[in-house]
Amino acid sequence: MKASGNCYKLQLLLAHLNQPYRWIDVDSTAGETRTPEFLAKNPNGKVPLLELEDGRVLSESDAILCYLAEGSRFLPADRWLRAQTLQWLFFEQYSHEPYIAVARYVAKWLPADHPRQADLPRLRERGYQALDVMEKHLATQDFFVGGAYGLADIALYAYTHDAAVGGFEFGRYPAISAWLRRVEAQPGFVAQTY
Amino acid sequence: MKASGNCYKLQLLLAHLNQPYRWIDVDSTAGETRTPEFLAKNPNGKVPLLELEDGRVLSESDAILCYLAEGSRFLPADRWLRAQTLQWLFFEQYSHEPYIAVARYVAKWLPADHPRQADLPRLRERGYQALDVMEKHLATQDFFVGGAYGLADIALYAYTHDAAVGGFEFGRYPAISAWLRRVEAQPGFVAQTY
Repeated sequence: MKASGNCYKLQLLLAHLNQPYRWIDVDSTAGETRTPEFLAKNPNGKVPLLELEDGRVLSESDAILCYLAEGSRFLPADRWLRAQTLQWLFFEQYSHEPYIAVARYVAKWLPADHPRQADLPRLRERGYQALDVMEKHLATQDFFVGGAYGLADIALYAYTHDAAVGGFEFGRYPAISAWLRRVEAQPGFVAQTY
Repeated sequence: MKASGNCYKLQLLLAHLNQPYRWIDVDSTAGETRTPEFLAKNPNGKVPLLELEDGRVLSESDAILCYLAEGSRFLPADRWLRAQTLQWLFFEQYSHEPYIAVARYVAKWLPADHPRQADLPRLRERGYQALDVMEKHLATQDFFVGGAYGLADIALYAYTHDAAVGGFEFGRYPAISAWLRRVEAQPGFVAQTY
């Protein structure tokens, strides 16, 4: 689903890896993740889903990132650097995505009179808390882990770059803003289009 | 924090690994994760937090599990088994804990007239969706990944075993109920006490 940052993460990594793949659009807003065929592959009914040529399937965007990046410079072999990468990936899924991605979804895709519009103030409050944590880290470091661009940057870029759509303002986040530009300057970078 | 399933995960893994450690109680409900001292170690203000002897710190319970389990039978070296382990760890943090752990917290620790009691129906609806996914998987497999007890079981056991406190009923989950007993029968298992 092109509009999903969780799906875009994989697009971005695969572009960096220069790895060929086939993209199949699945629109969760049209119920396509709730069909019997899709649920047979991912009982949790979510995109993205990675399907290997032999039919094995893997869900959860950040688990797929780790699988695809194994052996590449985007997921270091060093035990401590890997641990820090995972720390930021879990931060992204627990403290960042549920607020920044969901605020973006509510603000852009739900009607102005939808009851979930009432969630926006709390989503933004929590989203800003996540951005505060990122700003603090990036104030002294160019990238999230070990001074080099990697999976943590890819995962956090996916929804941060488009957070303005959810009503987040970046004037108070100069370090995040500079980091977004550094990510976009990486060789092989592809922008999200939807 | 003994009552936290996210902290208990580490207790359980460390017991299996027979690895010595020092436990420092930090009570988030008493503001102890929001002190300047704590925030200097984890700017995201959450427990658990792992501190190594040299002062390096790591946050995010499931990232800490992966770090501690490296090289042990609880986190297989095989690329596909690792990917599946991560899939279930991200499932736990995104689709399970935010509903099952939070319902438990609201039901047990917040006053009966607290406004967040109104969240319980939705928390339970989503929590049951997560339990449905687990039940389906465990209907044909003894453990979550590769037929052997490991990190995915430890992470998912942490809040599932105590979900009744949040109002979840297990009558419709025979496979989960049998799996809980299998986890408790593992050598070195320690129960959560709080």
